[in-house]
Amino acid sequence: MFVYAKDRPVEDLGGGVTRKLLAHDGGLMQVEVAFEEGAVGALHSHPHEQLTYVLSGEFEFTIGDETRIVRAGDTLYKKSGVMHGCRCLKPGVLLDTFTPQRLDYLQK
Amino acid sequence: MFVYAKDRPVEDLGGGVTRKLLAHDGGLMQVEVAFEEGAVGALHSHPHEQLTYVLSGEFEFTIGDETRIVRAGDTLYKKSGVMHGCRCLKPGVLLDTFTPQRLDYLQK
Repeated sequence: MFVYAKDRPVEDLGGGVTRKLLAHDGGLMQVEVAFEEGAVGALHSHPHEQLTYVLSGEFEFTIGDETRIVRAGDTLYKKSGVMHGCRCLKPGVLLDTFTPQRLDYLQK
Repeated sequence: MFVYAKDRPVEDLGGGVTRKLLAHDGGLMQVEVAFEEGAVGALHSHPHEQLTYVLSGEFEFTIGDETRIVRAGDTLYKKSGVMHGCRCLKPGVLLDTFTPQRLDYLQK
């Protein structure tokens, strides 16, 4: 039930993006995703609902047909199946939370 | 879908604890809870599953029969119905995520 940041490995996704899988159980999963300046989270969609909390940095985020700039403390909700993606304007970290869990993240 | 930190009011819960309701929709709700040193989140339980991400500070956290110290970047999963609570050792902020939404937080 307790997951310590120091115990979690960092996975290099390439393109200036790394991921750290945090606490996950039942219907919830939390993941940190770190971006270098200019790195891109390509537009994609999935059936999972998702919240994104901006931990640091600055991002241009697209959800559906809306594109906006977000910074630390801002939060974004993505409903099931909606297209979304981002571009990192200033290096930073996003905290993604999914329901249900992204089982594809556990299959590595 | 975009919720800006600057637009969200801070609710004083008393006892050195304040709360800021962030993005919430569908099956997810995110809330920042800020604690002064020594402030307590009394032991309680609810049917909602919950993740807690420690944004800052230091907390002594109890989940069920386990009590541990957590700091920035650490995450905690609380299953439905489990007793949990915390005591703030160094001032900081917790990010709580619930599924389903805490509808009681919307009734104010």
